Amino acid sequence: MLSFIPVSTNRNIIFVAMRGNSIGQVFKLHTFGESHGASIGGIIDGMPAGVGLNLEEIQLELDKRKPGQSAITTQRKELDQVQFLSGIFEGRTMGTPIGFIIANQDPKSKDYSHIKDSYRPSHADYTYDAKFGERDYRGGGRSSARETACRVVAGALAKQALASFGVQFNTYVSQVEDIMISTPPESIDFSLIESTIVRCPDLAVANQMIDRIKEVKKIGDTLGGVVSSYITGVSAGLGEPVFDKLHADLAKAMLSINAVKGFEYGSGFAAAAMRGSEHNDLFVQENNQISTKTNHSGGIQGGISNGAPIYFRVAFKPVATIMQDQQTIDNQGRETEIKGKGRHDPCVVPRAVPIVESMAAIVILDHYLRNKSSRID
Amino acid sequence: MLSFIPVSTNRNIIFVAMRGNSIGQVFKLHTFGESHGASIGGIIDGMPAGVGLNLEEIQLELDKRKPGQSAITTQRKELDQVQFLSGIFEGRTMGTPIGFIIANQDPKSKDYSHIKDSYRPSHADYTYDAKFGERDYRGGGRSSARETACRVVAGALAKQALASFGVQFNTYVSQVEDIMISTPPESIDFSLIESTIVRCPDLAVANQMIDRIKEVKKIGDTLGGVVSSYITGVSAGLGEPVFDKLHADLAKAMLSINAVKGFEYGSGFAAAAMRGSEHNDLFVQENNQISTKTNHSGGIQGGISNGAPIYFRVAFKPVATIMQDQQTIDNQGRETEIKGKGRHDPCVVPRAVPIVESMAAIVILDHYLRNKSSRID
Amino acid sequence: MLSFIPVSTNRNIIFVAMRGNSIGQVFKLHTFGESHGASIGGIIDGMPAGVGLNLEEIQLELDKRKPGQSAITTQRKELDQVQFLSGIFEGRTMGTPIGFIIANQDPKSKDYSHIKDSYRPSHADYTYDAKFGERDYRGGGRSSARETACRVVAGALAKQALASFGVQFNTYVSQVEDIMISTPPESIDFSLIESTIVRCPDLAVANQMIDRIKEVKKIGDTLGGVVSSYITGVSAGLGEPVFDKLHADLAKAMLSINAVKGFEYGSGFAAAAMRGSEHNDLFVQENNQISTKTNHSGGIQGGISNGAPIYFRVAFKPVATIMQDQQTIDNQGRETEIKGKGRHDPCVVPRAVPIVESMAAIVILDHYLRNKSSRID
Amino acid sequence: MLSFIPVSTNRNIIFVAMRGNSIGQVFKLHTFGESHGASIGGIIDGMPAGVGLNLEEIQLELDKRKPGQSAITTQRKELDQVQFLSGIFEGRTMGTPIGFIIANQDPKSKDYSHIKDSYRPSHADYTYDAKFGERDYRGGGRSSARETACRVVAGALAKQALASFGVQFNTYVSQVEDIMISTPPESIDFSLIESTIVRCPDLAVANQMIDRIKEVKKIGDTLGGVVSSYITGVSAGLGEPVFDKLHADLAKAMLSINAVKGFEYGSGFAAAAMRGSEHNDLFVQENNQISTKTNHSGGIQGGISNGAPIYFRVAFKPVATIMQDQQTIDNQGRETEIKGKGRHDPCVVPRAVPIVESMAAIVILDHYLRNKSSRID
Repeated sequence: MLSFIPVSTNRNIIFVAMRGNSIGQVFKLHTFGESHGASIGGIIDGMPAGVGLNLEEIQLELDKRKPGQSAITTQRKELDQVQFLSGIFEGRTMGTPIGFIIANQDPKSKDYSHIKDSYRPSHADYTYDAKFGERDYRGGGRSSARETACRVVAGALAKQALASFGVQFNTYVSQVEDIMISTPPESIDFSLIESTIVRCPDLAVANQMIDRIKEVKKIGDTLGGVVSSYITGVSAGLGEPVFDKLHADLAKAMLSINAVKGFEYGSGFAAAAMRGSEHNDLFVQENNQISTKTNHSGGIQGGISNGAPIYFRVAFKPVATIMQDQQTIDNQGRETEIKGKGRHDPCVVPRAVPIVESMAAIVILDHYLRNKSSRID
Repeated sequence: MLSFIPVSTNRNIIFVAMRGNSIGQVFKLHTFGESHGASIGGIIDGMPAGVGLNLEEIQLELDKRKPGQSAITTQRKELDQVQFLSGIFEGRTMGTPIGFIIANQDPKSKDYSHIKDSYRPSHADYTYDAKFGERDYRGGGRSSARETACRVVAGALAKQALASFGVQFNTYVSQVEDIMISTPPESIDFSLIESTIVRCPDLAVANQMIDRIKEVKKIGDTLGGVVSSYITGVSAGLGEPVFDKLHADLAKAMLSINAVKGFEYGSGFAAAAMRGSEHNDLFVQENNQISTKTNHSGGIQGGISNGAPIYFRVAFKPVATIMQDQQTIDNQGRETEIKGKGRHDPCVVPRAVPIVESMAAIVILDHYLRNKSSRID
Repeated sequence: MLSFIPVSTNRNIIFVAMRGNSIGQVFKLHTFGESHGASIGGIIDGMPAGVGLNLEEIQLELDKRKPGQSAITTQRKELDQVQFLSGIFEGRTMGTPIGFIIANQDPKSKDYSHIKDSYRPSHADYTYDAKFGERDYRGGGRSSARETACRVVAGALAKQALASFGVQFNTYVSQVEDIMISTPPESIDFSLIESTIVRCPDLAVANQMIDRIKEVKKIGDTLGGVVSSYITGVSAGLGEPVFDKLHADLAKAMLSINAVKGFEYGSGFAAAAMRGSEHNDLFVQENNQISTKTNHSGGIQGGISNGAPIYFRVAFKPVATIMQDQQTIDNQGRETEIKGKGRHDPCVVPRAVPIVESMAAIVILDHYLRNKSSRID
Repeated sequence: MLSFIPVSTNRNIIFVAMRGNSIGQVFKLHTFGESHGASIGGIIDGMPAGVGLNLEEIQLELDKRKPGQSAITTQRKELDQVQFLSGIFEGRTMGTPIGFIIANQDPKSKDYSHIKDSYRPSHADYTYDAKFGERDYRGGGRSSARETACRVVAGALAKQALASFGVQFNTYVSQVEDIMISTPPESIDFSLIESTIVRCPDLAVANQMIDRIKEVKKIGDTLGGVVSSYITGVSAGLGEPVFDKLHADLAKAMLSINAVKGFEYGSGFAAAAMRGSEHNDLFVQENNQISTKTNHSGGIQGGISNGAPIYFRVAFKPVATIMQDQQTIDNQGRETEIKGKGRHDPCVVPRAVPIVESMAAIVILDHYLRNKSSRID
């Protein structure tokens, strides 16, 4: 049992303002909105001009993230319709900031009343109270994963800009509990990702995952998993050698997604158990084409992309809201029990796929544009 | 075999300037310096005033990082003596920027001549050329891990400031190749970390690690490993709920260290294989003291510290420079062979311990001070 | 006659993105929107929590800025109704980002067709073409002063937050062409500012100004002027000693307003003609109250507020759009003539009063909050 | 008499840290150092690679700023020898951060002992105490104008980079008390600036200025003045349309210089008294060369450079330290008298010329490089 630094000593704090609502240096996303306010939205600042947009595809990405899309996600319905307010003219970006909103719909605030005074285990309830003095218990307010819909909008635009440079994103569920895909990413048929509701391109493995999720849902429990991303067509030269290494910015972006517990790229944690003679990616040349025999580097060396596919994995914990009663404390420090109710996901990774991909696209487009001010072409 | 986006298409680039030489928002570190210039150094901006400094302890941290300190590190000698130029008066910080330098000494540039025109596998040579058009082959220039000495200076100061708030850092080697510590961090006797040259507090495991490193060094190969950090006394409330989650900033800081391949906090990648009923940290109360039965959250919930110990793990790849001949290409794309020579570490994790700890201290002090502008006490 | 560095050499540029759409470090405003898009809007990030808002007063500030409000402003009608989307709950700020939009209405795009291919003298037409390669000629697009409506929303909120600390803003028209107010600001009855449509609190002078504006309007010409601001109740200690001096940040904020040509604080340009023995503000003490005999410092010494009223003046050029025909060139470099037409202000300073005041409030609240992270109260 | 918000209410503040020690977004300067510490210095981050440097010219700029250079400056001697530590190799910039130091020499700390407990009128003494709780009375510490030596180093480098793009800086003293130059800048022979110790290129006016300064020095008083800058060769397209207008960034940079009270560009405050028909810069074309009949725009329209010469004026107050006794208060609020002693400038504008020019060069180079990330050439 671990003793805490108690919150109570900070109780007479007057909270001023939440910070950290923006990401990016040249391609930037600023977001606003609580899960139960009028709308959420944001500003995409630095989007290159002249990109022809497929607005339906943007909505499609939002649909991949939205609740209620399949039998293995929460049955909570949200339309998540994005509305653009500026920066786009006749289907093309203008280079000016793109304001957008996604209206909130019919929130069942009553679903949250039972947790008004109690701390849900492994949620942000306790830490919100500790930091901000009070808490918007109606669905998490600003800490709700609903905020990630704004990231998907920005990421969908970034992907369309990057597609014109030849960058392709392939993001998929590679693990649910102990069921995992064994095929290395370079051998995967990524066209199968959307074939199943679990977004795992190995169909046999996908079916096992779906069965496991359904089974666990029945007993009111939840599952963790891993999302993998394999990105091709990124040219060599993105990333800075010291603090702003490309993989360091990817790590921050991924860990900023709700429920993420770990990030690794290329060989990742497995590298810790390897020897240099085995791990080094040997350069080879064939038909004037440079490549490496292996890609333990995950497409990034010294913090800078080398032109090989960028590959990383993101670990998600099991959803903290379970449909079982749990022991906890209330905000007076008294022990109590919290009932499992509401509409929640048994496993978050299928819906996390577009979020992971969006954050990757935001980081990579930002580095594309950062590079413009570090070189004269 | 993976084909690259070739560098050659970018060949007539005029590089302008490297970017990303700073970290932090309120507590900031700016660094400068190449491995073979007059000196490296930096500015620590935002260091709180009135902190009584133990300058010997700062030097001690640098000594833990420096080459040539033991039988299992490189025999390259560097004094790494830090000289402070401002911001400190009569042993106390003044609240003004702290300028400092570490003079470079007697670099054996000739050691690097054989790699002038060839790309060392899994090094930054190729990507540097791709990004910057030319490359300082003398020890890596700005991409050399020598830059991390500046981080250790800033981290050592940050640790002394945080110590006055009760924050204690315990960072150690937990894995070398397949040899790993099995004790959970809350049961480790951290006073033993410095007992062995490998900085693993389990002495039996430490001895195995030392033997393995010596053995692998003999055959000219190198090893990867894991550094773990367990930080106590961080009060609840650090970190922001959206993009600047405390663990997201820790992830970026860790991934910005040379040779790091992965980061996980609390349950980490293991969480992916767990169920919610097992993973949730149940709140308990005893003698008016709130705590949780487990700490899978690693001291951070919803991006905000909860007062429990913060715990994370950082994976390092095996050192890319091996004392064996390797197949590679030169900068004309021709296949060639690179000889293993020079003085390098067989395993970098013992020297990485103070670097990991320093980056953690920089992030945590930054969030302490960021919090000042988000609340009125 | 001055020769230009011609635009033509840059003609095959592909513009990427406009930058610089944000201001502030802790209290930040991000804006989006073109004058002829769906709406303009922004995010106010860092607004302190718990501020009870008077939403009608915010709309009142917007009404002071909006076109069509009086006989001496443009007859162009815009409703400028602000709609808040987040960050406010039951009339109080939540500390989370405040998203807002102002819908655009019925723009007469045809009014601008005659300037599609020609450069209006002393407008941004030529420089926009030079920088961005193409230009949104429909009312200026993003460079339209319409964008300042977003600043007034943020400034109105900032003023309400600052009012709770005792800060009062008094901003007025002090000069129109050669008609100027002679009363020193400490003797002005600021309650009279809104008594006249020109917003000059000396009513005799105000009437002269109104007559002059009407007279000049008849002949299709325009006038420049000066807006002065006198701010009381700012506590000592705001501003940083080196680059972020309080008056330096005020200067940038004021010069970022369309049509501004100069900024001076305290004694301003008059100080250049004074001697130290005359200019120095001597400290005096009476009844344990410290003050200075004079306030040539304008409330700021060494970049830091001293508790005395902050006083500054902002010069505006005459509106560039005149109702007279003018010689110019088209975008092929051919000489042509541009007709004076459309609905424009003969003198912009009355409508600039709320904009100047808003920018001042944004800067001062930002420094209030910046101070929180530079001290432990 | 104006009453202050008294400092005393803030007395039990624990100051944390000074902020605002950096300027620039892509080309950045970070500075450190107190007037009486070991050295001052900084990091120039973002300097383009491959610029051949004339190091003697950099030292020459420092010599123009240094004390003791002529009969009309303070007789205090400082060597101000810059030493570069990184980022330069064989006389050329490397694109990496340039660290540099300027050692402090033989400070006469005793000269300041008489002001330890008293507030010098119109100095930063009172505001420092109010903000930071304590004050380094030995020559101003970090608020000393000595810090501007670091800006001159960065500005001298920026000027050498900009010279290769054809940008030329001409900065001169245009007013001392009521003596002012009447020639418009386009008719001035700038080669005469360095002909006199007062740096006014109209030699008759210069001699009057020198006589006046000597005369005022004799009676222990000081004088204000104006520094003008006329910059040619800046290509069209620098500056952003909304908050980061080129002249807004220039204004901030100029107002961040010690003793500056005002900034105006082009027609400046005179524009307030003009009509549109008179003020508008009409476009003309001759021999395929576009230009304007007048340059009231000062080379900047809509916040973006138009290719015409950039022209602005900076007002300096008379030096606050006079050699006369002055009434004041001590830090207990008691009335007292302060003696005029020490070695100070009777008029700061001749030494301010290189500082103004340096800040302009820093801003313009920053916008040159910012432009790189807003377009694809």
